[in-house]
Amino acid sequence: VLRARTVPARIRSALREFSEHSPSRFAILVFGGLIVLFTVLFSLPISSAEGRVTNFVDSLFTAVSVICVTGLSTVDMATHWSPFGHALIYIGVNIGALGVLTLASILGLVISRRLGLRAKLIAASDTNPLRMHHGPVAEGQAVRLGEIGGLLVTVAVSALVIEVGLALLLFPRMLADGIPPLTAAWESLYYSAMAFTNTGFSPNAEGLAPFANDYFFLSVLMIGVFLGSIGFPVIYTFTRSIKARRRRDRAGKPARWSVHVKLTLVTSLLLFVVGAVLYLVLEFDNPGSFGSLNAGDTVFQSFFLSMMTRSGGFSTFDISQLNGSSLLVTDMLMFIGGGSASTAGGIKVTTLAVLFLAAFAEARGVQDMEAFGRRIPSDVLRLAVSVVLWGATTVAVSTVVVLQITKAPLDYVLFDVISAFATSGLSTGLTASASEPAQVVIAITMFMGRVGTVTLAAALAASERRQLFKRPEERPIVG
Amino acid sequence: VLRARTVPARIRSALREFSEHSPSRFAILVFGGLIVLFTVLFSLPISSAEGRVTNFVDSLFTAVSVICVTGLSTVDMATHWSPFGHALIYIGVNIGALGVLTLASILGLVISRRLGLRAKLIAASDTNPLRMHHGPVAEGQAVRLGEIGGLLVTVAVSALVIEVGLALLLFPRMLADGIPPLTAAWESLYYSAMAFTNTGFSPNAEGLAPFANDYFFLSVLMIGVFLGSIGFPVIYTFTRSIKARRRRDRAGKPARWSVHVKLTLVTSLLLFVVGAVLYLVLEFDNPGSFGSLNAGDTVFQSFFLSMMTRSGGFSTFDISQLNGSSLLVTDMLMFIGGGSASTAGGIKVTTLAVLFLAAFAEARGVQDMEAFGRRIPSDVLRLAVSVVLWGATTVAVSTVVVLQITKAPLDYVLFDVISAFATSGLSTGLTASASEPAQVVIAITMFMGRVGTVTLAAALAASERRQLFKRPEERPIVG
Ligand SMILES: [K+]
Ligand SMILES: [K+]
Repeated sequence: VLRARTVPARIRSALREFSEHSPSRFAILVFGGLIVLFTVLFSLPISSAEGRVTNFVDSLFTAVSVICVTGLSTVDMATHWSPFGHALIYIGVNIGALGVLTLASILGLVISRRLGLRAKLIAASDTNPLRMHHGPVAEGQAVRLGEIGGLLVTVAVSALVIEVGLALLLFPRMLADGIPPLTAAWESLYYSAMAFTNTGFSPNAEGLAPFANDYFFLSVLMIGVFLGSIGFPVIYTFTRSIKARRRRDRAGKPARWSVHVKLTLVTSLLLFVVGAVLYLVLEFDNPGSFGSLNAGDTVFQSFFLSMMTRSGGFSTFDISQLNGSSLLVTDMLMFIGGGSASTAGGIKVTTLAVLFLAAFAEARGVQDMEAFGRRIPSDVLRLAVSVVLWGATTVAVSTVVVLQITKAPLDYVLFDVISAFATSGLSTGLTASASEPAQVVIAITMFMGRVGTVTLAAALAASERRQLFKRPEERPIVG
Repeated sequence: VLRARTVPARIRSALREFSEHSPSRFAILVFGGLIVLFTVLFSLPISSAEGRVTNFVDSLFTAVSVICVTGLSTVDMATHWSPFGHALIYIGVNIGALGVLTLASILGLVISRRLGLRAKLIAASDTNPLRMHHGPVAEGQAVRLGEIGGLLVTVAVSALVIEVGLALLLFPRMLADGIPPLTAAWESLYYSAMAFTNTGFSPNAEGLAPFANDYFFLSVLMIGVFLGSIGFPVIYTFTRSIKARRRRDRAGKPARWSVHVKLTLVTSLLLFVVGAVLYLVLEFDNPGSFGSLNAGDTVFQSFFLSMMTRSGGFSTFDISQLNGSSLLVTDMLMFIGGGSASTAGGIKVTTLAVLFLAAFAEARGVQDMEAFGRRIPSDVLRLAVSVVLWGATTVAVSTVVVLQITKAPLDYVLFDVISAFATSGLSTGLTASASEPAQVVIAITMFMGRVGTVTLAAALAASERRQLFKRPEERPIVG
């Protein structure tokens, strides 16, 4: 019977072997493959509006930007591509977003499996939303392909529901604005996908400018970006809470939210408000940004800009007109990024939160990091430090190289590099005007930021080795 | 007998109370007091070359820069001050340097005392060089004033020996260059103090320009900066090793170096070489810096510049002529700074090393951080994270404020702010040309960087609280 296995079964088996044994390498391979495929597709004459071959660097950059849902571009995205090209972009960002959501979730599964071997009780607790596709704790470490499929379906259904919901809110508004029904249908789907996947491209040549004063339209985009950036574990908790309430109505107690969910929501909210207040204070009198707006508009646009740094990437005005101070604030907000296992980039809000929890514990002089009545194991801090070092090193190397190639001001280079790393997609215009070598460096930065950060975190968290003996302790002086 | 205590005895007693119970606040008070005193002295007409009152902001800035051994200035330091003013500067940097060395050592003593209560064995091991002024582990937590005095004497004698040694090397060279003997004596003492204290002011109007091609002179400065920046614990280990070798000659085994000493030396050396290589690669064809130099000169100047980022602050050319890439590299090197309990600033090389050791441990999947065959306790990582967060937050807030006030390019603002925080003293010229509010912000940054970092690290390390119960463990997702 074993010899009679069909070719598809063998491929399935080989795929399973690989995905089970080195999921990080598997992820890099999948994303790399998608980028190669889309580079070829974008370079085809049929993809460009003028029916010509798009050069290699532009095709590659667009492919990376689309698959990594970054939103930076070296060509005018709205006018350079044909309808076929736009369809590619639409499909690409959805594949990229679902891919990264699924990937992060699979890696999470693998980690919790491995950790499960060490401490079944922890992993078996229902606080980990990634464990919903199997009942009791499995004995093996492997993630079965069936589970991956199940996870992918759940992620895809969630994304579909959210994107269609957002599009249904945008569509009537576009009709009311006098846009023809077919165009409105396409653009509302496109905008909702660009919001939920945190990409930030516009389908129309003028971008968001026609909607710059349309609070309803911009609010829908903000909701889309928020839902995409908050992360799948949080969305899963939301839907579970809603279901639980509906089922039990008055009787049942509400489902407990995990520390991860609470930490993500609180940190995101804090960054959202702090960012908006800073933009308000720093930009209210800048004629290039909010100087000509009244008080209400200034407040709304500050919150919109703050939300877009999570990594939405939409902007209603020319980002290069911001004060240097606001550009730096944006750099920091983008670098932090969104929630874990989300379509947003950056080092993730929980990573930052864990660093501050460690500092609080140190200041209080207590042994353990604590949040929301729970103790956070100290190895999480090491993981957070590793992720930040990875991010800081990537951004530093990339910025130094791009600075040296372009000799452009640090304000703009740092901004576009961090935007690339954190898949934000906001741009000062440097990326589009930079030379091809610099654009390739930025493309590599996008890949490192998107695929690198997720796989690194997972690879580090999953690695575990038995230590045979304890060395004598010694304490260096720091600070 | 107790009632008959004299006034000096009462002051001594009150001083002891305060220094024992809140050494961090004591330190801030001492440095604050010194700055007030020197601000008044610098503002006196006798201090200025023109015999006029120096305005408040310039006097304050100079006082902070001198006491914090930063080396930034808002006036031309060589020409603005009278001989009396220069004597103040000379005395000020020595007080500042000895103050911070002693302070860091005292705080180290306090910490090891407190930790000693918890784990006598660790604290009692002779690997901690700060514990040399008392034999067996004391029962109490208090640091006696006698110990502080003893420590201060040891530090002062070391500094005196090193500074006089450096001056004796510089003096004949200056005579040979045709400088009159008295001027040469004064300038050689001045330069050696500025090197060892990591301040970086020049006594002569042309600064280092006359010596820009004098490898002997510059090398002596590099040695001075290195000895100042490596930290007192390392210097103490050096002298102990030399003494031990002399005493035991062939028989004895060499004294074991602590992890702190090894980690400081290895990280410093690595940063020194990496910095030099980067400057070489990024600047060899820049006409504003090394473009006109031959290969040998370029290599030497790269190493000189790299050493000065530790926080020496001397420069042989106009720093604002560096490429943006090199400015950013310098930013990072300055932010890291020198060794703990040294005259250098920054977050300290061991802090960076501990972060990377944590990432290595995470990558290898082992439980403990290890270095040189020793296990580093995990609370050291929390302390390192706290120090980095403190530094990053201070630099970020200061940079945003100065950017907003001056509207100057980020390249220059970030450079001068980090230079202030890390007491480096290298400048793009922004500090001198900035408005007074911006200069005050930079002065505050210097104080936060110098006094804040040392006291924060000590205050955090010393704080300890008993936890009465363990909360249930839960693991958020990071990265
Ligand atoms: K984006
Ligand atoms: K200095």
